[in-house]
Amino acid sequence: MGKTLVYPKTSSNTVNRYKDRATYDLGPIHSIINSSPVLHVSFSPDPNDPFPAILPMLGQMGSFEYPSADINEPLDCYLHGYVSSRIINLSRSSDSEGLPVCIAATKIDGFVLTLTPNSHSYNYRSAVLHGYATLVTDAQEKMYAMKLMTDSVIPNRWDNTRVPPDNAEMSSTSILRVKIVDGSRKNRTGGPSDEKKDTQRSELTENIWTGVVPVYETFGEPIPSPSNKVKEVPEHIRSYVDSTNESNRAYAENVAVNKLPSKSDTN
Amino acid sequence: MGKTLVYPKTSSNTVNRYKDRATYDLGPIHSIINSSPVLHVSFSPDPNDPFPAILPMLGQMGSFEYPSADINEPLDCYLHGYVSSRIINLSRSSDSEGLPVCIAATKIDGFVLTLTPNSHSYNYRSAVLHGYATLVTDAQEKMYAMKLMTDSVIPNRWDNTRVPPDNAEMSSTSILRVKIVDGSRKNRTGGPSDEKKDTQRSELTENIWTGVVPVYETFGEPIPSPSNKVKEVPEHIRSYVDSTNESNRAYAENVAVNKLPSKSDTN
Repeated sequence: MGKTLVYPKTSSNTVNRYKDRATYDLGPIHSIINSSPVLHVSFSPDPNDPFPAILPMLGQMGSFEYPSADINEPLDCYLHGYVSSRIINLSRSSDSEGLPVCIAATKIDGFVLTLTPNSHSYNYRSAVLHGYATLVTDAQEKMYAMKLMTDSVIPNRWDNTRVPPDNAEMSSTSILRVKIVDGSRKNRTGGPSDEKKDTQRSELTENIWTGVVPVYETFGEPIPSPSNKVKEVPEHIRSYVDSTNESNRAYAENVAVNKLPSKSDTN
Repeated sequence: MGKTLVYPKTSSNTVNRYKDRATYDLGPIHSIINSSPVLHVSFSPDPNDPFPAILPMLGQMGSFEYPSADINEPLDCYLHGYVSSRIINLSRSSDSEGLPVCIAATKIDGFVLTLTPNSHSYNYRSAVLHGYATLVTDAQEKMYAMKLMTDSVIPNRWDNTRVPPDNAEMSSTSILRVKIVDGSRKNRTGGPSDEKKDTQRSELTENIWTGVVPVYETFGEPIPSPSNKVKEVPEHIRSYVDSTNESNRAYAENVAVNKLPSKSDTN
């Protein structure tokens, strides 16, 4: 594993409740972002609007300067958007630092069912990043980020499609690069935890089922389009579907019975 | 279905891109919120902090005044939090209107794989609400909301556990009621949609697989805790696990091939 880099703890990202569930290590935080098919990105749309906005967006951590950087190293978060959307326009017109954004990704891994509603919980993994979004203007960096995001949906998909994008496609898509200033991750793993006041009452323990319902994302059997002419589902899709289904299920079942140390959990 | 109530279109919630995928009808919006195990809630933590905050939270739409109100009627959004958390403290200290929040829930239903990365898409359902959060102080309303949220995880779970909460439990949990001012929902359903410039090139159509990988949330086999003494998984858990697995899978597979009108889609 080598060195462990950590994000600075600030008033924005420091976890105050269940601190043992939190980590500031880059790797575990980045891995949640990269394995989430959708991120929730918040920004302030207008100084006169009291409400923050949230957009569901596709995004990935990456480094154009050091493309071989691994998940534990400092990375930018690339976000994908339509060229005239509000967040793109705000990022384009913001000052040099960029548009302040908050990026969140959450996975629910299980429903933890206990003797009393108050002790009920979720097993989950949640990452939050803060940073400044600016528009990517360099064509090569834009292409790097587009490939990164296409391959985040299905690995190697980019090389199995018609590329490169033509001029019209390049200009209709915008990419934001978010320079991360801090981040945190919070987990809950393990089985039910009831209080003694309930566990010592046999009329409760003999009648109330306690345990965990594992929860995980599943990919179904790929369904060809009416115009598809390729007979077999290609290996780059088949292998990803199968391996992700297996690892998602295994993670949810594992944390239903085993409490993992949050720092070392890079799933 | 009877009457259809709609949220007002404001500058905050009006969808400008792919307008045909949007709806402002209360029912379809509320149903996404209620079937999402986690919501992302954004707020401005501090006037001196440039970054909005996002918290993953448990929440449900409901009406304490009219508990029999159905999903198409005006409802509040109840959110659950620890008593001294930042969002609870801000809501407690905010003026009478409450803390402005944005609430988002998103479901990814499929990866839509086309001839070129530019046409790749997701099938998804996404709801966004804006409103003002205040702390629930009435004990009966608090109990109503706690039952609502427990039963949102597993229907009828509340009545199958040790209730009511005792005084310590009631005072350690806070409930926010968000008065909704506007909302919107956006969907994408259906199969791949490629452009003619690509579909007319046989060297592409004969070599690139196009179709949809359905994506859906699955509940695994319930795993009893080491201290559980109830032999069979109870019916309220078993039936929900089975029926949700079936309906989640069926929805993702259905929208992989059928384009649904967004207004009538109340899943």
